[in-house]
Amino acid sequence: MKLNIALLPGDGIGPEVIQQAVKALDAIAEKYNHEFIFTYASIGAIAIKEAGSPLPDATLKICTEADAILFGAIGDPKYDNNPTAKIRPEEGLLKLRKSLGLFANIRPLSIYDALIHQSNLKAEVIKGVDFVIFRELTSGIYFGEKELSADGTEAFDVCKYTVEEIDRIAHLAFKSAQIRRKKLTLIDKSNVLETSRLWRKRIIEISKNYPTINLDFLFVDNAAMQLILNPKQFDVILTENMFGDILSDEASVISGSIGLLASASIGINSAMFEPIHGSFPQAKGKNIANPLAAVLSAAMLLDHFQLHEEAEAIRTAVEKSIELNITTPDLNSTNHFSTTNVGSFLSDFI
Amino acid sequence: MKLNIALLPGDGIGPEVIQQAVKALDAIAEKYNHEFIFTYASIGAIAIKEAGSPLPDATLKICTEADAILFGAIGDPKYDNNPTAKIRPEEGLLKLRKSLGLFANIRPLSIYDALIHQSNLKAEVIKGVDFVIFRELTSGIYFGEKELSADGTEAFDVCKYTVEEIDRIAHLAFKSAQIRRKKLTLIDKSNVLETSRLWRKRIIEISKNYPTINLDFLFVDNAAMQLILNPKQFDVILTENMFGDILSDEASVISGSIGLLASASIGINSAMFEPIHGSFPQAKGKNIANPLAAVLSAAMLLDHFQLHEEAEAIRTAVEKSIELNITTPDLNSTNHFSTTNVGSFLSDFI
Ligand SMILES: CC(C)[C@H](C(=O)O)[C@@H](O)C(=O)O
Ligand SMILES: CC(C)[C@H](C(=O)O)[C@@H](O)C(=O)O
Repeated sequence: MKLNIALLPGDGIGPEVIQQAVKALDAIAEKYNHEFIFTYASIGAIAIKEAGSPLPDATLKICTEADAILFGAIGDPKYDNNPTAKIRPEEGLLKLRKSLGLFANIRPLSIYDALIHQSNLKAEVIKGVDFVIFRELTSGIYFGEKELSADGTEAFDVCKYTVEEIDRIAHLAFKSAQIRRKKLTLIDKSNVLETSRLWRKRIIEISKNYPTINLDFLFVDNAAMQLILNPKQFDVILTENMFGDILSDEASVISGSIGLLASASIGINSAMFEPIHGSFPQAKGKNIANPLAAVLSAAMLLDHFQLHEEAEAIRTAVEKSIELNITTPDLNSTNHFSTTNVGSFLSDFI
Repeated sequence: MKLNIALLPGDGIGPEVIQQAVKALDAIAEKYNHEFIFTYASIGAIAIKEAGSPLPDATLKICTEADAILFGAIGDPKYDNNPTAKIRPEEGLLKLRKSLGLFANIRPLSIYDALIHQSNLKAEVIKGVDFVIFRELTSGIYFGEKELSADGTEAFDVCKYTVEEIDRIAHLAFKSAQIRRKKLTLIDKSNVLETSRLWRKRIIEISKNYPTINLDFLFVDNAAMQLILNPKQFDVILTENMFGDILSDEASVISGSIGLLASASIGINSAMFEPIHGSFPQAKGKNIANPLAAVLSAAMLLDHFQLHEEAEAIRTAVEKSIELNITTPDLNSTNHFSTTNVGSFLSDFI
């Protein structure tokens, strides 16, 4: 298979981890006789610096033309504590999601037995946890109208949802539940929010098309507890943009390392794959960042093109590295390996 | 001291736990020679049933005239899965908060050594955790304009904040940090939301009046991780209404039981005290609900009127009940006591 892959390393540790994902994909291409053509493009703080925009037109063009996108990370502390900055790295990512219509962010979470002791949660609580979060990614309060009043004394953000926006991701989530354990949990705040009530109404309606799926509901505050109290109860979680942002980061803690979690962002004509960790600026350039999430994102990319055997080969290599303790300091305090060393182990193993 | 206390037991297990708090307060009144006059009033689903409104005028009047309010719980599953219900129990609570101007919800969290094994988190992660969350309670998206379009195909909710709304709770939080460990963490999503940027700007500004306080910031998604990854890092947490709703419920998991956590909601002329657990309808009428959170809420009420010795007497009784395992099934799987028995132990001990 021939695939055009846009590479958007972005900020912080993004470039370092993406480099390891490329090494893994190169190894796969060689072993399985595929052709992966990589095109680099800039996004985020680095793009602001180099091109004056967090999403330069050239980057958007490369992404639109690519078969898939592999994304690193975005964000720079320089902007975080400056509430009056005119442009921000994050806008690049939000605009990219919107422009490409990447409406569904899919974050699977399962536990590596060899790492079970890494988690702050007790082993018996997390052993066997296996769920996937479907987060709506191109609407809600992150994309609604927002304004600071002229005198600077008040501000607002609008959370808006349409039935279409809810339906399209709902169908993906129900379909995923059908090939999993057949349970779907909608997370909302329908006791207070009008948008949540619209979500709940639509999901109840849509569930009629999926009679084998066991549907339940949680308020977002309760869900934030349940994820830690009893994470095994979940199979497919469906939720709106901001709740998904908060809960999927929270859920990452269960696994013991955010450095292991991959995600896919799916649209009608585009698909982007990215580690869920952020730009982790403190680690930048130190060759200590965990590349596994980026490499596992590459595996999700392969799955997307039905290259399941290839994806499995990557996952096997990752499991091997964990088993052999060929891992970065976040997973391995005594005898750890560098980002590039872990990447080389993986590509050699493949 | 003479105190007029409005009692709002509300729904579910609310009445059962409030009854135990009243027993504790009666014991305190007798021992320390105070006069506590209790006036019952209805709110929530029960008020809808009895009076057609989740916050009857009579209830609001009683609350306005009282020195303080002791609140049980609100909510009924009957309304939860009915996205088109015209009136909801929760509106009673939201309207009460707004009418009385209860702008600051204060939720302290610390760990009872005797219960450390109860938590799903490892003992070494939670031992010594001691923080307090200041959640803004009368603005933000829960109170903003909300609408479902006439054709039912789209909905919106507006999150709005003014400088005044931010400043008044910020000062309370900074003052609390001054008499604690002098650290304040603002949680926001200022990389995306305009309201969050206003929060951050104001907090930076206000912090200049509190030069001894060590101020830092977390994005809400990261905060949802940090609460579980490293809860000891927190001293005072300050955040807006919805983030506070989600994060304080999440934080309750750290302690090992939501049945232990009390809260205060403070306004200019009113103060309300309530357990943070909900109405827990499955347990209603079974005499199994944990009354400790309600009883500890009564202790916060006493503290509010500078009756610190009395508050301490309640807390000592609660500690004793935990030490002796005179606790409800949520804390005690083998040899547990009923709600009323725990309540009687506490009032006898006082
Ligand atoms: C960087 C930021 C805008 C982004 C988000 O909040 O969506 C990130 O936190 C994520 O979850 O992908
Ligand atoms: C019942 C509900 C409206 C309320 C809220 O979300 O504020 C509750 O969850 C709380 O935290 O006190």
